[in-house]
Amino acid sequence: MDDDSRKARWEQHTEVPLAVASLVFLAAYAVRILAHSLPDTWQDLCLAVLFAAWALFAVDYAVRWRLSRQRLRFVRTHWLDTLVLLLPLLRPLRVVRVYEAVQRRHGQPRLALHARVIVYAGLSTVLLGFAGALSVYHEEHAAPGATIRTFGDAAWWTCATFATVGYGDVAPITPLGRLIAVGMMAIGLALLGAVTGTFASWLLQVFTREDDERPPGI
Amino acid sequence: MDDDSRKARWEQHTEVPLAVASLVFLAAYAVRILAHSLPDTWQDLCLAVLFAAWALFAVDYAVRWRLSRQRLRFVRTHWLDTLVLLLPLLRPLRVVRVYEAVQRRHGQPRLALHARVIVYAGLSTVLLGFAGALSVYHEEHAAPGATIRTFGDAAWWTCATFATVGYGDVAPITPLGRLIAVGMMAIGLALLGAVTGTFASWLLQVFTREDDERPPGI
Amino acid sequence: MDDDSRKARWEQHTEVPLAVASLVFLAAYAVRILAHSLPDTWQDLCLAVLFAAWALFAVDYAVRWRLSRQRLRFVRTHWLDTLVLLLPLLRPLRVVRVYEAVQRRHGQPRLALHARVIVYAGLSTVLLGFAGALSVYHEEHAAPGATIRTFGDAAWWTCATFATVGYGDVAPITPLGRLIAVGMMAIGLALLGAVTGTFASWLLQVFTREDDERPPGI
Amino acid sequence: MDDDSRKARWEQHTEVPLAVASLVFLAAYAVRILAHSLPDTWQDLCLAVLFAAWALFAVDYAVRWRLSRQRLRFVRTHWLDTLVLLLPLLRPLRVVRVYEAVQRRHGQPRLALHARVIVYAGLSTVLLGFAGALSVYHEEHAAPGATIRTFGDAAWWTCATFATVGYGDVAPITPLGRLIAVGMMAIGLALLGAVTGTFASWLLQVFTREDDERPPGI
Repeated sequence: MDDDSRKARWEQHTEVPLAVASLVFLAAYAVRILAHSLPDTWQDLCLAVLFAAWALFAVDYAVRWRLSRQRLRFVRTHWLDTLVLLLPLLRPLRVVRVYEAVQRRHGQPRLALHARVIVYAGLSTVLLGFAGALSVYHEEHAAPGATIRTFGDAAWWTCATFATVGYGDVAPITPLGRLIAVGMMAIGLALLGAVTGTFASWLLQVFTREDDERPPGI
Repeated sequence: MDDDSRKARWEQHTEVPLAVASLVFLAAYAVRILAHSLPDTWQDLCLAVLFAAWALFAVDYAVRWRLSRQRLRFVRTHWLDTLVLLLPLLRPLRVVRVYEAVQRRHGQPRLALHARVIVYAGLSTVLLGFAGALSVYHEEHAAPGATIRTFGDAAWWTCATFATVGYGDVAPITPLGRLIAVGMMAIGLALLGAVTGTFASWLLQVFTREDDERPPGI
Repeated sequence: MDDDSRKARWEQHTEVPLAVASLVFLAAYAVRILAHSLPDTWQDLCLAVLFAAWALFAVDYAVRWRLSRQRLRFVRTHWLDTLVLLLPLLRPLRVVRVYEAVQRRHGQPRLALHARVIVYAGLSTVLLGFAGALSVYHEEHAAPGATIRTFGDAAWWTCATFATVGYGDVAPITPLGRLIAVGMMAIGLALLGAVTGTFASWLLQVFTREDDERPPGI
Repeated sequence: MDDDSRKARWEQHTEVPLAVASLVFLAAYAVRILAHSLPDTWQDLCLAVLFAAWALFAVDYAVRWRLSRQRLRFVRTHWLDTLVLLLPLLRPLRVVRVYEAVQRRHGQPRLALHARVIVYAGLSTVLLGFAGALSVYHEEHAAPGATIRTFGDAAWWTCATFATVGYGDVAPITPLGRLIAVGMMAIGLALLGAVTGTFASWLLQVFTREDDERPPGI
């Protein structure tokens, strides 16, 4: 009980700083990858910021692992946290939760379930798409015979992948680029499922209401 | 209360004229983009019609903003109207609502929810697809190395995008063309969600009815 | 009442012959398009069969129009029949209904809704896909610069379109071929909706049952 | 009754050995196809393992056919088993069932329906995708003009197909390769349906609960 409350307090206090660190991490990553012509000092600064942010994530993970008093089980039950620690570019998945927490703290009423799903799906799609486009661009742009040569190409390819349209006019060709791409396809599938599922359940809800409004007995 | 009724009366009176203006806007836009060999006088006429229609939209927006007695909040709560004012090619999203209003006024019974969703999705897909194909064609057809060279190509590409098939035999290559394309992919995703969701909820409804018909108790 | 029963009797008697005529129509169409090296006499025979089958469809439509005692309204209320009369390749949409009627007549219990949707979707996908692949092949195979050069290409392209995968390694390039392709994309979207919707409603049904089985009160 | 219990006992005892045989079959198939430079003795060993595993499957099918005391009806009612016997690469469809059975036997509580659907879909997608990529690679890699030249290409193409993205940068060109591809598209469609359907039904379930929690009467 005591540990639980300490864990909850820790999470409450670190929520916003960690979310800020995630966005800083993403920004530093973007600068480092996109700004080729930066002087070396700035490049090194970006790298330092990246490591600092990652160190924060590691400390947070360690503290929560400690407070949980679980050993290996923590790694399994918090697999999303473990994954996000190893691949910090997936952090956006946690940022979204913070967005909701902040809104709740400001006394704003909780959004309806549909709106929450759409906000969650939209935010994580945008942030993960940005991170994914950066990584794919980084892997691809210098490969011989690559079709993804500018960040614009990578962003365009990301959109075509998330919408499961997949024109194929630009596509990754390096093994690592394709590996990242497979992860992004999975996100695209999940996005499609979220959009479709939200629509279906919304329609069904409207239906049920209309049925309820007509005769009082059925 | 007074303002509300005046707003309702205003909306009731402007509904049909605005819908007509939207269609005229779309037609003038189509003529201006597709008819390259028109004499300059006609081109200028189309431009004049475009501006006149847009001015009507702006006046309508201003009047409703006034009647609402809200200031900035109006911009946020009526974000769809604001968006449509800035991008008049999205007007079709409002035309559909008018179609329904007209039908209701003619005493025709309201369509069932499924039929309404299908009509709404179909109409807005056709109109938005036409507007989108025009814009993409306009951006692309003169670009060096473009694959979308005729309006037929643009229409074909639009269909392949909306169905999320995405052959990629023709695809936009200019930054602006790709930006429009991303918007159209989002419409395609929504269309897919509407089709799938309608089907799922229709199936579930049929089920529930069959279950109700069998034993009276369950 | 009298007309209704006469119409019902007519439909009951013509169901199977018309379904057979539809399959004969499709077969004759396939032979005419695929067998280039057939002597002219056989080609003419196929054409005769095509016209004879179509004449049957027209007679059936006329008789039912007569029996309905409706004038133009019949064309609108039976829009699927009208469409199928004009585009006989869409006949498969009616063959499926016959399949079900025949099975019912043989005393076999009606399939569960899910199974019926899957059978309906599967049968019409296969038949419409075959008809569509034939038409697209017919339009494309002789066009200069075409990528669909054999019926195998057309069949492969049809599958990629129905699954909304759309590789784009082969794709129609003629205006008429693309028009047919758009119709086939619509079928693909509907198929996707059917598969997804069936799955969603089946899952929900299983859920409801599991919920019912646990405590009797909820 | 006696036969049924004997059949149940047979199935219970053969479940795990058959699942192991399936994985061994898949592994031997992978080694045989991917390891070109293996000495002939090893290649022959792989072939022997393949045949041995398949013989096990055939024996199991025969015994169950015997115990069922049905003749041709068994082939129809157990069409999935028949199909899996003819195309042993589809075995993964049965491995998954074993995974669940093993988990149940170890006293672990049954997963919730959603988790089960996700585990089932995930496991069978990975295993079938691996088998499919192997077959397509085998058919394609030596064909003149093929774009799928390495197993990496085949795996990449498999992912793009399962996500219904379909870039088309690599695509099968041989008739047999395309036939396998069509089967994999069908799996992709089913996967999409499972993801979307699970999401929709999960959303609806959450809804119903929230509705139940608010007022006690509705």
